[in-house]
Amino acid sequence: MHVLRKPYLLYLGDAVLKSDCKTAFGLRDWCPDDVLGEWSHPNGRVTLGLPRLSPAQAAARGAGSIVIGVAPTGGQLPEHWQDDLQAALEAGLDAVSGLHTRLGSSPRLRAAAERRGVRLVDVRHPVRDFAVASGRKRSGKRVLTVGTDCALGKKYTALALTRALEARGLAATFRATGQTGILIAGSGIAVDALVADFLAGAAEALSPDNRADHWDVIEGQGSLYHPAYAAVTLGLLHGSQPDAIVLCHDPARRTIEEYPDYPIPPLDVVIEGYLQAGRLTNRAIRCVGISINSSELSEAEWDAYRGKLARELALPVCDPLRGGVAPLAEALAKV
Amino acid sequence: MHVLRKPYLLYLGDAVLKSDCKTAFGLRDWCPDDVLGEWSHPNGRVTLGLPRLSPAQAAARGAGSIVIGVAPTGGQLPEHWQDDLQAALEAGLDAVSGLHTRLGSSPRLRAAAERRGVRLVDVRHPVRDFAVASGRKRSGKRVLTVGTDCALGKKYTALALTRALEARGLAATFRATGQTGILIAGSGIAVDALVADFLAGAAEALSPDNRADHWDVIEGQGSLYHPAYAAVTLGLLHGSQPDAIVLCHDPARRTIEEYPDYPIPPLDVVIEGYLQAGRLTNRAIRCVGISINSSELSEAEWDAYRGKLARELALPVCDPLRGGVAPLAEALAKV
Repeated sequence: MHVLRKPYLLYLGDAVLKSDCKTAFGLRDWCPDDVLGEWSHPNGRVTLGLPRLSPAQAAARGAGSIVIGVAPTGGQLPEHWQDDLQAALEAGLDAVSGLHTRLGSSPRLRAAAERRGVRLVDVRHPVRDFAVASGRKRSGKRVLTVGTDCALGKKYTALALTRALEARGLAATFRATGQTGILIAGSGIAVDALVADFLAGAAEALSPDNRADHWDVIEGQGSLYHPAYAAVTLGLLHGSQPDAIVLCHDPARRTIEEYPDYPIPPLDVVIEGYLQAGRLTNRAIRCVGISINSSELSEAEWDAYRGKLARELALPVCDPLRGGVAPLAEALAKV
Repeated sequence: MHVLRKPYLLYLGDAVLKSDCKTAFGLRDWCPDDVLGEWSHPNGRVTLGLPRLSPAQAAARGAGSIVIGVAPTGGQLPEHWQDDLQAALEAGLDAVSGLHTRLGSSPRLRAAAERRGVRLVDVRHPVRDFAVASGRKRSGKRVLTVGTDCALGKKYTALALTRALEARGLAATFRATGQTGILIAGSGIAVDALVADFLAGAAEALSPDNRADHWDVIEGQGSLYHPAYAAVTLGLLHGSQPDAIVLCHDPARRTIEEYPDYPIPPLDVVIEGYLQAGRLTNRAIRCVGISINSSELSEAEWDAYRGKLARELALPVCDPLRGGVAPLAEALAKV
C-alpha cells in the first residue's frame, strides 16, 4: 500500500489550461488542510490561488511531498519539469505522481532521490504483490460505492459520504482505490494496476480489521456491467466484503461509455446483480441508496427524476453536488 | 501471447519422485507428437520412458525447445539445472519454464540466450500488456470450461473436449490460459498473471475471429464462487464471450478448497450464476453439460450420481476419465 508524506506542495508545470490541472484542483478542494502551496514553471499560466512556494520554501514550512497535479501532453515527463522535481527532491521532499510514466524512469530523478534519501512514489503502480484473499470476515463496517459505469462519481460519492458520516459523529475512513483518491487520502492501492490473482487480497488489505462501529468508505472502480473492467469491480467487491453499497449512476448515460452496444440495465437489475455477487463474501450486504450525477438535468428534471427513482426503488436518492449525501449517511447509521 | 517452438525436449533435473514431474508426464500424455525425448541430470531417478537425448542430440533431431518438466524444491533454479539449460541454449534450443522464478533471473542463462539468439520463455509471466477489451462480437464459436472451484478438471475437460470435437469431424482449437495448458498447446496466455484491467482484453486476443463453424475450446480458470479468484474467472468469461459453457465439478468437494467457510452452491445455482454473468457479452450463452471429476466415487456411486444429476439438470454428465466427453461434443455440435 502507498502511504504518502503530507502536507503537499502542488506542482503545475507549465500548464496553460485549468483542465490539465484537474488533479491539483481536486486536491486543493478535497484536502485543503494537507496542501501548503503551489509551484510551477515560469511559463505556467494556471494558479490554484494558493501561496506560491519554491520547493525549498515548502520544505522549510514542513512539506513532505511535491505532487504532480498536472497531466503532461503525451504522457512523458518534460525535461524542464524534471528540473523542478529534482530541486524538490534535493530540498528533501518526496516526489509523488499519478501518471502512467514512472518517476523512476528518469535516471536523474532516481539518482537525486537516492542521494537525498527521499522517495519517488508512483501511486498508479502498486508497490508490491499482496497476499491472496483469505475470505475471512473482518471486524468493523464497510460501504463500497459501485456504479452502472466508470467515471460517474464513485470517488466523489465516497469522499462526500465519509464527511457526512463524520458530520453525524461516526468514525469513518475514506479508502482510496485509484490514483486521485490515493493522493487525497494520502494512502491507498490502485487496484486496476494489480495482477488479477491478488485483487481481492489487496482489497482485504486496504480495509483491515477495525472498531466494531467504524466505517470504511471504499472508493469503487469500474462496473460489473462493463465488458472490459468488470473483473476489477468484482475483485474489489469480494475483497471489500461490504455491509452496504451505494449505487452511483448518471441518468444521461444510456450505454456504457465508448461501448454503444452495451446498454445500462435498469437500476433495480444492477442493484440485484451487485448484491448477488457481493453475497459470496458478505451474506448481509444491502444497498442503502443511490448517488446520482445529475449535472445534465435542470432543477425541475432532477426533482422529478429523484422522486420517481426514490419511489420505485424505495431507497434514498442523492446528488453529492445537489444537496449532499446526508440521507445516505443516515441510512448507514442504521446498519 | 506466448508462442513456443515445438517439438520439445523434456527436462527432469535430478528429480527422484514422479510427483515432482507432473508437467513432464502431462506433456508426454497430452502432446506425444510434440515430444522428442527426455533429458535429466545424472542424479535424476525419474524417466518418462522416452528416448534419452542430450540437448545437442535433440537439436540435431529438430527440437525447438527444452521444457522444464519438473518442480524445483523451494522454487529457485538449482545451479546444476542451469548447467543443463545453458547447454541446451548453446545447442540452439529455446528454454521454456512454467515456474514462478523467471529464467531471465539467471545472468548466465540470459547471456547464453543472447549470445546464441534463442529465447527464454516464462509461460507463467505474460509477455506484454494487452489492449482493453472491445466487447465486439467475434466470428466463430467458443466454449469455456468453468468450475465450482479451482483445480478440478477444467484444463483436462477442455483438452478432452477438443479431441472429441475433432473426432466428430469438427474444427476445434484448444486455447490455453494457464502454464501447463500453454506448454501443451504451444501457445496461450497465463491470465491469472495479467494486470486486472487487461484481463478481458487478453481473453479476446486469445480467441480471435475464426471460421463460422470453428470451435475455440477455452481452458477456464478459478471459479465465480471463489473468494480470491473470481475476478480472474469473470474477466476470462467476459472476454471469451462463450456460446457455451461446460461446468466442471468434483462431488467430493463440499466447500472451496482451503476455504472451509465457503460452501459450493448447488450446481443449478452455479450454472445460472455463470450464465447471468456471461450474458453481458453473449446473450446466447448456454450450458451444454457437466464434467465431473469422479475419482473419489466407486463405479456404482458414479452411475447413481451421474443418473441423478443428468435428470435434475436435464444435461449430459460426463467424466473425461470415465467414458470420455463425447456427449458434450454432441451437444456442442447442435449449437
